[in-house]
Amino acid sequence: MHKSKLGGFIIDCQTADLGGAADFWGRALGMEQRQLPPDEAEKYVALADPLGRLDIEVQAVTHPSRVHLDIETDDIEAEVQRLEALGARRVAQISTWWVMEAPTGQRFCVVRPQSPRFAAEAHVWP
Amino acid sequence: MHKSKLGGFIIDCQTADLGGAADFWGRALGMEQRQLPPDEAEKYVALADPLGRLDIEVQAVTHPSRVHLDIETDDIEAEVQRLEALGARRVAQISTWWVMEAPTGQRFCVVRPQSPRFAAEAHVWP
Repeated sequence: MHKSKLGGFIIDCQTADLGGAADFWGRALGMEQRQLPPDEAEKYVALADPLGRLDIEVQAVTHPSRVHLDIETDDIEAEVQRLEALGARRVAQISTWWVMEAPTGQRFCVVRPQSPRFAAEAHVWP
Repeated sequence: MHKSKLGGFIIDCQTADLGGAADFWGRALGMEQRQLPPDEAEKYVALADPLGRLDIEVQAVTHPSRVHLDIETDDIEAEVQRLEALGARRVAQISTWWVMEAPTGQRFCVVRPQSPRFAAEAHVWP
């Protein structure tokens, strides 16, 4: 038995100017930027949602720009296997997470729990 | 003076099988499907979030699959002009909304208010 939920959406920007990208998206969406710890701040800026809904982050990437979603889970391997059974496939393991591709073609990530709401809100899979 | 906010995320699927795409994403994210009115149901299936956060929809499209975000606003033209001043550009007007492209390359839509939370949560622009 493990748990998972939609964690949030990452705005992947093919840019060397993470600050400029975060400025655009923060102002476009009316959301304040929130600095992340130094080990994450080089690639990510969080956009703070005062209502505490989903996590929205801007990420500097080297591949073409896109938006992807994260599924957070307390058991990465069990969740990846559950998603494979639904038709998704593994693309690459990076650090603690898996990049997967949906049968409809979008890439998404399966990550460890990111939000304080995880335990209360996650779906329990038998 | 007008208002806008992040409305939600649309999972664009290049498929003729909207039902199959919605089945995958609903089961992957642990979210129930919610039928939309007939004029929308041909292209869209909403994924119901019991916590009433952002709107998440699966859409059948003819372009390559991706995920895009919607900004909802009570004044489309004023919001499009605000976003142009930030560096975005107009791509195409479709029905009541505008497709725009961010300076970081992602396409997104500027749409009329979709959620009952719009009035309370939207950012007011001077």
